[in-house]
Amino acid sequence: MSFELLTRRQKALGASYRLFYEEPFAPVRGEGVWLYDKDNTPYLDAYNNVASIGHCHPAVVRAIAEQCAQLNTHTRYLHPSIVEYAEDLLGEFPETLNNLTMTCTGSEANDLALRIARCHSGGTGILVTRWAYHGVTSALAEISPSLATGLPTASHVRLVDAPDSYRQKDFVGSVKAALEDMQQHGIKPSALLIDSIFSSDGVFSPSNGEMAAAAQCVREAGGLYIADEVQPGFGRTGGQFWGFQRDAVVPDLVTLGKPMGNGHPVAGVVGRSDLLDQFGRQQRYFNTYGGNPVSCKAAQAVLDVLREENLQANARDVGSYLAQGLRALAERYEVIADVRGEGLFIGVELVENCDARTPASRAAALVVNGMRQRRVLISTTGPAANILKIRPPLVFTRTHADLLVERLDATLASLS
Amino acid sequence: MSFELLTRRQKALGASYRLFYEEPFAPVRGEGVWLYDKDNTPYLDAYNNVASIGHCHPAVVRAIAEQCAQLNTHTRYLHPSIVEYAEDLLGEFPETLNNLTMTCTGSEANDLALRIARCHSGGTGILVTRWAYHGVTSALAEISPSLATGLPTASHVRLVDAPDSYRQKDFVGSVKAALEDMQQHGIKPSALLIDSIFSSDGVFSPSNGEMAAAAQCVREAGGLYIADEVQPGFGRTGGQFWGFQRDAVVPDLVTLGKPMGNGHPVAGVVGRSDLLDQFGRQQRYFNTYGGNPVSCKAAQAVLDVLREENLQANARDVGSYLAQGLRALAERYEVIADVRGEGLFIGVELVENCDARTPASRAAALVVNGMRQRRVLISTTGPAANILKIRPPLVFTRTHADLLVERLDATLASLS
Repeated sequence: MSFELLTRRQKALGASYRLFYEEPFAPVRGEGVWLYDKDNTPYLDAYNNVASIGHCHPAVVRAIAEQCAQLNTHTRYLHPSIVEYAEDLLGEFPETLNNLTMTCTGSEANDLALRIARCHSGGTGILVTRWAYHGVTSALAEISPSLATGLPTASHVRLVDAPDSYRQKDFVGSVKAALEDMQQHGIKPSALLIDSIFSSDGVFSPSNGEMAAAAQCVREAGGLYIADEVQPGFGRTGGQFWGFQRDAVVPDLVTLGKPMGNGHPVAGVVGRSDLLDQFGRQQRYFNTYGGNPVSCKAAQAVLDVLREENLQANARDVGSYLAQGLRALAERYEVIADVRGEGLFIGVELVENCDARTPASRAAALVVNGMRQRRVLISTTGPAANILKIRPPLVFTRTHADLLVERLDATLASLS
Repeated sequence: MSFELLTRRQKALGASYRLFYEEPFAPVRGEGVWLYDKDNTPYLDAYNNVASIGHCHPAVVRAIAEQCAQLNTHTRYLHPSIVEYAEDLLGEFPETLNNLTMTCTGSEANDLALRIARCHSGGTGILVTRWAYHGVTSALAEISPSLATGLPTASHVRLVDAPDSYRQKDFVGSVKAALEDMQQHGIKPSALLIDSIFSSDGVFSPSNGEMAAAAQCVREAGGLYIADEVQPGFGRTGGQFWGFQRDAVVPDLVTLGKPMGNGHPVAGVVGRSDLLDQFGRQQRYFNTYGGNPVSCKAAQAVLDVLREENLQANARDVGSYLAQGLRALAERYEVIADVRGEGLFIGVELVENCDARTPASRAAALVVNGMRQRRVLISTTGPAANILKIRPPLVFTRTHADLLVERLDATLASLS
């Protein structure tokens, strides 16, 4: 670790730029599920969901390099790449979700989805979960309580309980109550915006119709159901390509990001053409880099690889195998209270007292740093940061899962 | 032109996706100032300010291809590329502007600058020019009247006259009046956000201290002066590296975008470290792709090429030569009322009647489409879209300028 580089970094970038781990990690090279430091020591990556098909996948590298050398303009010119990608991507959605607008980041996608919802509903009210994270723009920061900005939640926002299977929260009841409260305050709802894997709230994957029921409530009140698939999308949850499909509900709008270009900045909004057209007729929307040929070729390569390497099925199989291994650890370590999630998006909740369910935040931090010392990269999530967040590239194998469980075992043993 | 591709595009992308020109242009390859269609016919690009160092510059292509194959993670890990780039870039700014935060798009940069300004001032009031464009997020759409959203301008926004040298508008007086109006309505100002070349307002490049005077007014009222350098920045205006330097004023925050990665999605906010630190301590800001090693290497390659190929000086020399040629045309064509701008950002105002100064919007559209038929790409700007916007890659030479003037001559002759 270069102290000199840290000092220079602090000076040039300032306080916003925080680093992971007590001992920051400095990778210089990536390949598949591995990140390598300057001494060529491999670290098992069980955290990065952006490099979803594996770090530096040659198909993506080639697509970007070739298209960069050929043409990289914008969507005011006609180019087949965006049309071909849009058609291919939309084939992965229910038939009524038949339009794509491309952006560069998941934040831009969620922000645009809010604009479309306001345009359609004529309302401003937004419902999000209590510890939601949806992005970094002004409009998204005020509906992302997990940023802990200390800002008062804006008057048009209502927070609802996530469908917490461990603490048995009533998600649908909470949505109903929030809608009633909006009505009492004369706020017209525009959208319920939900991360289909509830990542920042603590990783939940309801499949009992709760998301469908919540969607129905908000629609009856005149708002849209927006599925934030920035994290769960593109096969990660294994059982389905998009998180919302777990619950047999069709959203009005779906937002995409992180793994869409395996690290290249590409994101988008998929939705019903009547909604996107209504917005497009009333307002100009043009995203300078969004949907340029390089982005489209990168995104197309990702989609191709996901299919060719059968990564959704791998996420299901390896995810289920990994969860088993983690549950076996839970038998031996009292601190592990719950293992949940779906596919290769797993949450491991640590508590200090099983009856009181007191979050073991300090233990979680020790585990994450202990795993980093043992060269496995994971993180935490949830309002108390007591839930281990395990979210590796989708090319993770059973051998990698065994390694992770073995290192977690050693880490937990060292804390006992 | 493929009618089939147009139909498929309309179906998959919908109404938001508009194309330039009556006969849309479909480039397949780019090199330097040239874009080529499928028949390998060259088009002179005098429009694209993103591919600022020339389409598909090999130095950028190489930087992206190499880093993509090596590592593409995020700024929660330590990597020298962002530190080295930040130090190099900050060297191009006045000493007090000593921190960089990286984003993916100019929209994200402007949106973040507003958040920083609100955090610092405790106010919400924003001043922008009457036909401003600052980006596509929710917060930026409501301060971008040129998007013509039909939405009521938000109550915290005040519009001011651009320093229109042709119609002799009083920019500073307008800023003063708007600040007084805010005070009367109990709105605390947070920022004056100004594009230093006033691109969407019609291309103005004041150098008489107006921007400095306006900045002083907003600072006295407790707000910040944010220079939007997304369009004028990185040497385009020739006389200086950043547009604001023309007026010997140092902004509080500067936003960057478009040409920063020559097409790769990279952007950022440069500002005083006390402002960025205050924000960073109070609020979490993390941009998933922002400042990743690939973005930094692409941006570094652009900065290197700008210097090695002496492109700022070229913008000044060729820009001045081109403006001369355009002024010579103005002697012969009454419709050209004013040739203005700086470096390779030129506005040519067309009017129907020199005394009444009636905008010749229809003539401007005919010229733009006529130039496209003559294989030169330009566009229009301004509230009446009667101002030709000429903004080529900075590798434009005098030979290219001659060709542009010759084709514009032919186009104007054909309209007479």
